Amino acid sequence: MKTLQVELAERSYPIFIGQNLLTDNQLIMPYIDGTQVMIVSNDTVAPLYLEKTKKMFADFECQSVLLPDGEQYKNLEYLNSIFDALLTAKYDRKCTLVALGGGVVGDMTGFAAASYLRGVNFIQIPTTLLAQVDSSVGGKTGVNHAKGKNMIGAFYQPRCVIIDTDTLSTLEDRQLSSGIAEVIKYGLIRDLSFLEWLEKNTQKLLKRDPQTISHAIEVSCTSKAKIVAEDEQESGVRALLNLGHTFGHAIETAAGYGNWLHGEAVATGMLMAADLSMRLGYLKQKDIERVDNLLDMAMLPTRAPHFMDYDHFIELMAVDKKVRAGKINLVLLKKMGDAMVTDDFDTQLLKQTIEAHRAVSAE
Amino acid sequence: MKTLQVELAERSYPIFIGQNLLTDNQLIMPYIDGTQVMIVSNDTVAPLYLEKTKKMFADFECQSVLLPDGEQYKNLEYLNSIFDALLTAKYDRKCTLVALGGGVVGDMTGFAAASYLRGVNFIQIPTTLLAQVDSSVGGKTGVNHAKGKNMIGAFYQPRCVIIDTDTLSTLEDRQLSSGIAEVIKYGLIRDLSFLEWLEKNTQKLLKRDPQTISHAIEVSCTSKAKIVAEDEQESGVRALLNLGHTFGHAIETAAGYGNWLHGEAVATGMLMAADLSMRLGYLKQKDIERVDNLLDMAMLPTRAPHFMDYDHFIELMAVDKKVRAGKINLVLLKKMGDAMVTDDFDTQLLKQTIEAHRAVSAE
Repeated sequence: MKTLQVELAERSYPIFIGQNLLTDNQLIMPYIDGTQVMIVSNDTVAPLYLEKTKKMFADFECQSVLLPDGEQYKNLEYLNSIFDALLTAKYDRKCTLVALGGGVVGDMTGFAAASYLRGVNFIQIPTTLLAQVDSSVGGKTGVNHAKGKNMIGAFYQPRCVIIDTDTLSTLEDRQLSSGIAEVIKYGLIRDLSFLEWLEKNTQKLLKRDPQTISHAIEVSCTSKAKIVAEDEQESGVRALLNLGHTFGHAIETAAGYGNWLHGEAVATGMLMAADLSMRLGYLKQKDIERVDNLLDMAMLPTRAPHFMDYDHFIELMAVDKKVRAGKINLVLLKKMGDAMVTDDFDTQLLKQTIEAHRAVSAE
Repeated sequence: MKTLQVELAERSYPIFIGQNLLTDNQLIMPYIDGTQVMIVSNDTVAPLYLEKTKKMFADFECQSVLLPDGEQYKNLEYLNSIFDALLTAKYDRKCTLVALGGGVVGDMTGFAAASYLRGVNFIQIPTTLLAQVDSSVGGKTGVNHAKGKNMIGAFYQPRCVIIDTDTLSTLEDRQLSSGIAEVIKYGLIRDLSFLEWLEKNTQKLLKRDPQTISHAIEVSCTSKAKIVAEDEQESGVRALLNLGHTFGHAIETAAGYGNWLHGEAVATGMLMAADLSMRLGYLKQKDIERVDNLLDMAMLPTRAPHFMDYDHFIELMAVDKKVRAGKINLVLLKKMGDAMVTDDFDTQLLKQTIEAHRAVSAE
């Protein structure tokens, strides 16, 4: 087992990465204060790992609440079902919420923990690659609104993150690829050598080679932990982690939550960001091709829905959290492995990028 | 104009108390960062003060969203209508939410500000006595759940609180009395001389004598600001501010949100807390009579609904935020003007208190 630390003064916490961690009922002991534990999961993950996870918490009063699986249920209505379960069980301020699942479960459980009785403990047990390399670390929690992704939420850190890589054995291929998109992101924004490693090892990742996957998770979490420690509430460097996300969130919202997986939308968004970077003179054509090839290799989509024209993108991107004083801020690439945030781009070039990346036929 | 300060390090903020403050468009200038202001109010307050308030923000892009008036609308569904308005207007992270109204508007606006884009600025402009002396100060925000009051929320401080005492001229009598209940609370929990002052001046408060009301607001806000500065997240002394609230929240929930005003339920709850304190030997019969008389004088109810028996109270009190490890913590009075938190009481005595304070006939 490897242990990384997210350094946030009195809110610091460890990330445990290893195999067979869900059988270790001592690991979580220091991170629970009271006697009550509520595991939040979904109807895909629960049949696979809920009983096993409950054994970890055998020394506590442990109940569970299941959400339906999918981004389309990440809203205030289903959030309320977590509060229902907590209040029905009469859970108090010392209780602990445990997120067992992917990014949706983690984001919702974290926001429920931030808001229940104005704040209770929570623990992340991510079971998808995307949640393990990105969303379970760093304390961004929340739900979607019909008008925009992740618009409602809180910065709220977990007490610990437990990444049992064995859970990836049951992950469907599309979800695995979605996670690889966020792994590629770390290479693109600040780690050229990791990007090169990914170009050589993505096939192995797709084949779920344990050592290759562990390495990818460790590098990703190390990068994430460092960035979050520097800038918890995203006033600076943390914004770089949003490479591809402003385009991606627009795609997820327009396509209907749940139709595109988050990592799929981010993949297409990253290629669009790279493309705009090229049009602005930062990248070369061959750099774009490299990004495109790597995303292709990872079985990720690189074309936005055909029905999303420039106006449609702009309408949705204008409510993104990166907007400042009416100007859309985008994460672009200065060069491969080096990202920046800017609102300094010609909208005509943005329009060219969007038109160049629309799918040519109905999807 | 008087200015008090809530000392919370980098989150410190002023409370301005005075007449005619809603015409001062310079006062709020230092507390707004961006260009966008959203005033949240309700359909009772807006016809009276919305246009006036909008003039305060004439230098900004200023929109408004109105909620229906009443505790029964303080829930996630109506909270979402605030997010709807913000997203439709494409408000960004630099926007400011302004709560113009009573406790419900303040609590919901504060929680909306805490959660919108994971946190934006907000300003409190309380227009009821209850909000002016209590709920607008201290950063407790949130909404109700069908199973319990204020169960979902956040600690989130405003940038400033503007108390224009002129707004009380339009307050209905029942709301005025409801506010006086919270004023009496400060006397009961830690200020015997203020309690004595209230016994002499409650008639003047009911007649809305400006100087008397201003004094009551200043003393109350000074007390609240001091307690919040000592214990922002209620790990100690702040809990004393909940005198009467555990009983009161149970009454509000059981009676149906909006039927009892918050201060009315707190008044009955404070008498019940005093009664239990007497049964435990802390207070004398004449102390209880003093509390009863003062609440009577303030036109406040002192009997719980007839249909609330012991089991009903316990069921609802068991989900209160003051519960720890299954034990109900209550704020009781060691003596007049001196409160404490305890779970050390015989449930038989609690039962006697509840039975002694049920209304004898249907209400």
